[in-house]
Amino acid sequence: MTTPLQEEKVFKDPVHKYIYVQDQTIWDLINTKEFQRLRRIRQLGTCFLTFHGAEHSRFSHSLGVYEVTRKIISQFERNKYEDWPREERLLCLCASLLHDVGHGPFSHSIEKTFGTHHEEWSCRIVLGDTEVNQVLRRVSPTFPQQVAGVIAKTYNQEIVVSLVSSQLDADRMDYLLRDAYFTGVNYGTFDLERILRVMRPYQGHIVVKESGMHAVEDYLMSRYQMYWQVYFHPVTRSAEVLLHNIFQRAKHLHEEGFAFRFLLHPLPNLFRQKMTVHDHFLMDEAFMQMVLMQWSFEEDPVLSDLCTRFLQRRLLKYVTLEKIDARQIERLRDQMRSFGIDPDYYLDIDFPSDLSYDVYRPGEQDEKLPILLLDSRDTLTEISRKSEIVRSISGIHMGKYHLYYPRELLLNHADKLDKNLRKLLDL
Amino acid sequence: MTTPLQEEKVFKDPVHKYIYVQDQTIWDLINTKEFQRLRRIRQLGTCFLTFHGAEHSRFSHSLGVYEVTRKIISQFERNKYEDWPREERLLCLCASLLHDVGHGPFSHSIEKTFGTHHEEWSCRIVLGDTEVNQVLRRVSPTFPQQVAGVIAKTYNQEIVVSLVSSQLDADRMDYLLRDAYFTGVNYGTFDLERILRVMRPYQGHIVVKESGMHAVEDYLMSRYQMYWQVYFHPVTRSAEVLLHNIFQRAKHLHEEGFAFRFLLHPLPNLFRQKMTVHDHFLMDEAFMQMVLMQWSFEEDPVLSDLCTRFLQRRLLKYVTLEKIDARQIERLRDQMRSFGIDPDYYLDIDFPSDLSYDVYRPGEQDEKLPILLLDSRDTLTEISRKSEIVRSISGIHMGKYHLYYPRELLLNHADKLDKNLRKLLDL
Amino acid sequence: MTTPLQEEKVFKDPVHKYIYVQDQTIWDLINTKEFQRLRRIRQLGTCFLTFHGAEHSRFSHSLGVYEVTRKIISQFERNKYEDWPREERLLCLCASLLHDVGHGPFSHSIEKTFGTHHEEWSCRIVLGDTEVNQVLRRVSPTFPQQVAGVIAKTYNQEIVVSLVSSQLDADRMDYLLRDAYFTGVNYGTFDLERILRVMRPYQGHIVVKESGMHAVEDYLMSRYQMYWQVYFHPVTRSAEVLLHNIFQRAKHLHEEGFAFRFLLHPLPNLFRQKMTVHDHFLMDEAFMQMVLMQWSFEEDPVLSDLCTRFLQRRLLKYVTLEKIDARQIERLRDQMRSFGIDPDYYLDIDFPSDLSYDVYRPGEQDEKLPILLLDSRDTLTEISRKSEIVRSISGIHMGKYHLYYPRELLLNHADKLDKNLRKLLDL
Amino acid sequence: MTTPLQEEKVFKDPVHKYIYVQDQTIWDLINTKEFQRLRRIRQLGTCFLTFHGAEHSRFSHSLGVYEVTRKIISQFERNKYEDWPREERLLCLCASLLHDVGHGPFSHSIEKTFGTHHEEWSCRIVLGDTEVNQVLRRVSPTFPQQVAGVIAKTYNQEIVVSLVSSQLDADRMDYLLRDAYFTGVNYGTFDLERILRVMRPYQGHIVVKESGMHAVEDYLMSRYQMYWQVYFHPVTRSAEVLLHNIFQRAKHLHEEGFAFRFLLHPLPNLFRQKMTVHDHFLMDEAFMQMVLMQWSFEEDPVLSDLCTRFLQRRLLKYVTLEKIDARQIERLRDQMRSFGIDPDYYLDIDFPSDLSYDVYRPGEQDEKLPILLLDSRDTLTEISRKSEIVRSISGIHMGKYHLYYPRELLLNHADKLDKNLRKLLDL
Repeated sequence: MTTPLQEEKVFKDPVHKYIYVQDQTIWDLINTKEFQRLRRIRQLGTCFLTFHGAEHSRFSHSLGVYEVTRKIISQFERNKYEDWPREERLLCLCASLLHDVGHGPFSHSIEKTFGTHHEEWSCRIVLGDTEVNQVLRRVSPTFPQQVAGVIAKTYNQEIVVSLVSSQLDADRMDYLLRDAYFTGVNYGTFDLERILRVMRPYQGHIVVKESGMHAVEDYLMSRYQMYWQVYFHPVTRSAEVLLHNIFQRAKHLHEEGFAFRFLLHPLPNLFRQKMTVHDHFLMDEAFMQMVLMQWSFEEDPVLSDLCTRFLQRRLLKYVTLEKIDARQIERLRDQMRSFGIDPDYYLDIDFPSDLSYDVYRPGEQDEKLPILLLDSRDTLTEISRKSEIVRSISGIHMGKYHLYYPRELLLNHADKLDKNLRKLLDL
Repeated sequence: MTTPLQEEKVFKDPVHKYIYVQDQTIWDLINTKEFQRLRRIRQLGTCFLTFHGAEHSRFSHSLGVYEVTRKIISQFERNKYEDWPREERLLCLCASLLHDVGHGPFSHSIEKTFGTHHEEWSCRIVLGDTEVNQVLRRVSPTFPQQVAGVIAKTYNQEIVVSLVSSQLDADRMDYLLRDAYFTGVNYGTFDLERILRVMRPYQGHIVVKESGMHAVEDYLMSRYQMYWQVYFHPVTRSAEVLLHNIFQRAKHLHEEGFAFRFLLHPLPNLFRQKMTVHDHFLMDEAFMQMVLMQWSFEEDPVLSDLCTRFLQRRLLKYVTLEKIDARQIERLRDQMRSFGIDPDYYLDIDFPSDLSYDVYRPGEQDEKLPILLLDSRDTLTEISRKSEIVRSISGIHMGKYHLYYPRELLLNHADKLDKNLRKLLDL
Repeated sequence: MTTPLQEEKVFKDPVHKYIYVQDQTIWDLINTKEFQRLRRIRQLGTCFLTFHGAEHSRFSHSLGVYEVTRKIISQFERNKYEDWPREERLLCLCASLLHDVGHGPFSHSIEKTFGTHHEEWSCRIVLGDTEVNQVLRRVSPTFPQQVAGVIAKTYNQEIVVSLVSSQLDADRMDYLLRDAYFTGVNYGTFDLERILRVMRPYQGHIVVKESGMHAVEDYLMSRYQMYWQVYFHPVTRSAEVLLHNIFQRAKHLHEEGFAFRFLLHPLPNLFRQKMTVHDHFLMDEAFMQMVLMQWSFEEDPVLSDLCTRFLQRRLLKYVTLEKIDARQIERLRDQMRSFGIDPDYYLDIDFPSDLSYDVYRPGEQDEKLPILLLDSRDTLTEISRKSEIVRSISGIHMGKYHLYYPRELLLNHADKLDKNLRKLLDL
Repeated sequence: MTTPLQEEKVFKDPVHKYIYVQDQTIWDLINTKEFQRLRRIRQLGTCFLTFHGAEHSRFSHSLGVYEVTRKIISQFERNKYEDWPREERLLCLCASLLHDVGHGPFSHSIEKTFGTHHEEWSCRIVLGDTEVNQVLRRVSPTFPQQVAGVIAKTYNQEIVVSLVSSQLDADRMDYLLRDAYFTGVNYGTFDLERILRVMRPYQGHIVVKESGMHAVEDYLMSRYQMYWQVYFHPVTRSAEVLLHNIFQRAKHLHEEGFAFRFLLHPLPNLFRQKMTVHDHFLMDEAFMQMVLMQWSFEEDPVLSDLCTRFLQRRLLKYVTLEKIDARQIERLRDQMRSFGIDPDYYLDIDFPSDLSYDVYRPGEQDEKLPILLLDSRDTLTEISRKSEIVRSISGIHMGKYHLYYPRELLLNHADKLDKNLRKLLDL
């Protein structure tokens, strides 16, 4: 069981002004060591190297997701909507607070290299021997299982899963506003209050009143712009490429038996993909940044150079893939080898769609629940069937492919490079 | 010599919208490893434990100070003010960009424990064997010396020092706006554009047109509010107390010859106060947070417990000192000792005024240059002589003293505690 | 009786984002012709001649006051405070919506000239033969009387009067934020959400939790700045002086039997101070501005010139009264007469304190209810006894006296003017 | 000739923070009676009946257009772009300030009824016997002609016309931001500073650097949203329909020789379409609103009722035209006649596209200059050929047709109305 707090607790938040905590369980979850650890994980990974304001943590974001969920539910309760299952309130709040608790530092690169997945880790933390688990079990012995079910999208009530993970969920609503605020761009702003007002629980779904269609269009356009301008920004991608190559190199060296100067626990477990929940706790972003700093002094010149580049923001340059063909890339690889620059670590093609490709595409690839409009005759229609603008955005091919290359290293060999490559690579 | 960049470079900034870089020297300074390191130092130290949005770095702030200085100078140049020494432009810009480059992680606590000073470090970096120094020397062999002079406030042109360090300097104007933005409070907002417009170079001083007096009042009131509400917030101070005690304990253990599990270079040099510029570079906030994490597993129970508390935000509670007298505190120390809780590390009195006590106090304690109003008859008057509101604020005693104590540890011994102490400490 | 609306109605509002209407009575009041008339009355009178953004109407402000009141009450109800008299909800909402319904165009000048008072008119509209009265009577036969009582501050429940009219009332909270928003100054911003959260009903008063003291200080400082920078701005005052003189002149001409070209009903009733509620309805700001336009073609040169000046914003210039003594002013009057410029209409001394002098002054002049702090021991203390900053602001003498004069008319006679007057008046 | 002002003048503006005036000519133009008259014309006509904040004047907007133009030019000059014709600066500034000076009250309805056109009036004011003309002639005898040429888009320098009137002009950039600010919606916000930075003068055109394409997309999306959500809002359109019918009725009555109670000069000239520049000056929005008030007491029941409706915001209801076919509308007209409700004044179909249909449609209908992207090889491409999102928006059919009808009048005859009409019209 949960009990209401005697006095509401309040966090000052730049995005939602205030975040209100009203349940003892929520308060206790926030104070667990696993949740506090999120203060030491940046929300946007390497994006701060492009937008210096983007230094906010997953702690802030997780509180924000909780607050958006709380606002939605409180609107449902205030309007006494019959289709809202009131008994699911605490479950929704806990799942929205905890859905990101499994994130590690620079998740994308690490997950790509070591095959981990942050949602799995969130579930492991919820179910494992953790403070989070203890707090949840105080609600009921099966409660951790339920929370994990919502995070894993296997919980049997769609309406609950929807709030945390759908095309119009509390997660995205918070991160679009928050990332826009901290980067300083104004692409991500949309009218949250209006969207919340047009949301309805209806026959097991979360739907949107048809009169709110334009507000949802505006939200989807914001999302489109944020992907183009922030999340897929080629400089951010360049830093991701670098990080990925660092981890690849380190993994390779470890497999080769290289004698690291610095190889603190739990790095070996990471390499062997044998991380425990406790190891996961230790490996926050401070840990990883310090590892990068220490590795910049390792004897392996590739690892050392890549780490130094990351710390000092000397990123690889890029050119759009349209401008260069497969044969030219092959030729470039050969030439790089001949200069002693290993193309496996210094040349890379990036497909931003490797990231969760997240523009709204009804019914395609994306398993997320679509957005349904409810009209005055109580008919449900998927939004892109009514909105020309949504239809238009959905069809657009997102993200460009880029070739990343070490411009200043190649400059040293410019006279030996093919002329057309020099031109293409601006050397 | 410096050369203008062929094309202006631009950083997106949430506070100033954009930051404009027009000189090769500035661009090169930003790309030095010492300046990039500021990305790994939070601007507000432990304040993020009170205001979770306060996760911004000294990198952002340093760019902001540079931008405010650039705007002031550009207004001076546009208006062709005769008293503005045009040849000092680059010096002002470099000094404003670099004045915080010597900051380390959690500066206040570390400086208090180990007697270092961030301004000294800024000068050492400017003058030492660093990338920053190399860039500056390209302007002229004596340029690093000049920049260090401005930072140390010994440079012989008051007008140059004023821009970086006075009661109305670019440093404060940026941090008030920035800290307000990231914490989400709206106390720190004032009309920057208007203040810049009423500033004038005049006979070797930076002065303010009398008609701008109210805008300056508003700025001083913002400052007053920010000190009360953010910088001196007792929860932030509690985290500072904790950090200070951690460093005290570690220093003590080191002096005693304690065998640390984890004592990575350059920690021994920090303890011995023998840090080099290179050591300083290594010791960023990631380093220090990771040290705190590792120390949470040391065998010394005090060190281990204090570090765990910091990481998990289990801070000491506080009571205002007005409510408790010296004898009661002495008694409390004794009782704590009898319970096996060392008061040297778990009981503390904090005087926020130990911080640079920074409300405007003309002519007192504070060596910073005062704010001068220029009236229509070209007379200069110190602002508090004209403004009743400034006079009022100046006289107000700032900051309360608090006693910090480990409430939940004492709770275990509550039955043995004096009754009046229990009441005072809410046990 | 009132009934809840089947579906909440919503107004988009730039200050509060949205304004929510939940009661049929409120909806009906908004749709009366007397309330709709407020769309044709500017909130800040002549202030748009100083701050061109200040073109917002009393309609917007009245909705805003209603919304702030609604938010306060809804917080009281949500927290189930026992000292809140729930049955007064609708009365508070109606009174806050209607308290300004009696305002006419350019209230200050017209009230000063013709001795009317907008609060009296609000009561006459609430009690008279109006659509507003009909709507209120539907609640209960005595309800109009109650609403009028709250507006006139004679209602016997202090807590109800407090919400609409005290030192921390919904009226001021809305207008500070709204006037700051539309003028574009950022002096008037304070943290409304936080202030609402620390307000409590307590033993028949509205009080503030002591922990909210700094938020209230911030609100009072905003008020101080808005008075100095916006409401008492000498250019706005100059336009007020002009308007007052226009009405004085017209009244004088009417008494003298002057044959006006244009004297539409109900102007004669205004001159004779015999306005009915219907006359009041006719006389909106469009009416008055058109009168000024038409009067600019009257044969009386003084009336014609003053009206032309107002329409074309050719205001009187000003000098602070400190710079000029009574004898010099007398001499100036004499000289003006000798030039054929009537000082009764072209020379004026303005005391901004004639306006409701509105900086917080506990217990003095001002009959408004003071701000009480409630501490943890349930003691009430007037705020200036605890806050040094409030004490400081309260003591400050507000507003400067200015002498307004027709600079360009005097310029024509500059050679005949006394030399010291020329210097004083910048001629 | 123009001379720079000795000291820059500054207007506080909520949208651009400050508006800077640096030329005597601009200052003098602002102070003419024709420009000051714009304070008495609302920017958005009847839109304040839908969004109560939309009470801002064409005065504010005109200053804003001037300021955006000034910023663009100042960026061009700062970057020393060779293709910028420096000698056209003052012409651009004057034309942007004055392009709306010919607007009258409720322009759309009046222009539709009486066949006037605001741009023609702007030219007549620039060229006629006005204070504006006098100020312009002081620059040079042919200067008024040049300014009128730019407003009429006949001036022979495309680059000058572009700034004031193209798909990406100062006019639209200001009104999108300003209308969004005052209505309080956040659809109209885009990154003005970034757009200004990517604009370039190039071979006689204003073009946009290709890297700025996304910023322009964002601006076009804002425009799309503002049209849907604000400018074509059916409630605003309903008020326009009402006004149009009022003017139609008055014109009809005048032609019939109806004896108006109130028919002040220059109304007869308006009816006869013989307005002079002086008549135009007299006929501001205060005049027209007062006329509506006076006409609400005319004996003609149709005119009187329509005016009362407008003043008290009792608008016609609407239904989308998709739901009702031509035969049903014909039947409705007949039935209305049989009830004594004249369908010519109480039934209307509105096509929002009658308004300048303003979503970006390259090369179609719209004579405005398109947006050209400049790539790194100095090739110009019309934006929709590169941007899928622009292509998508361009193809979307904008605005819905609505049928407006007097619901509460029909309610009185509901029993006689065809059943299917009753259902369609929600009776």
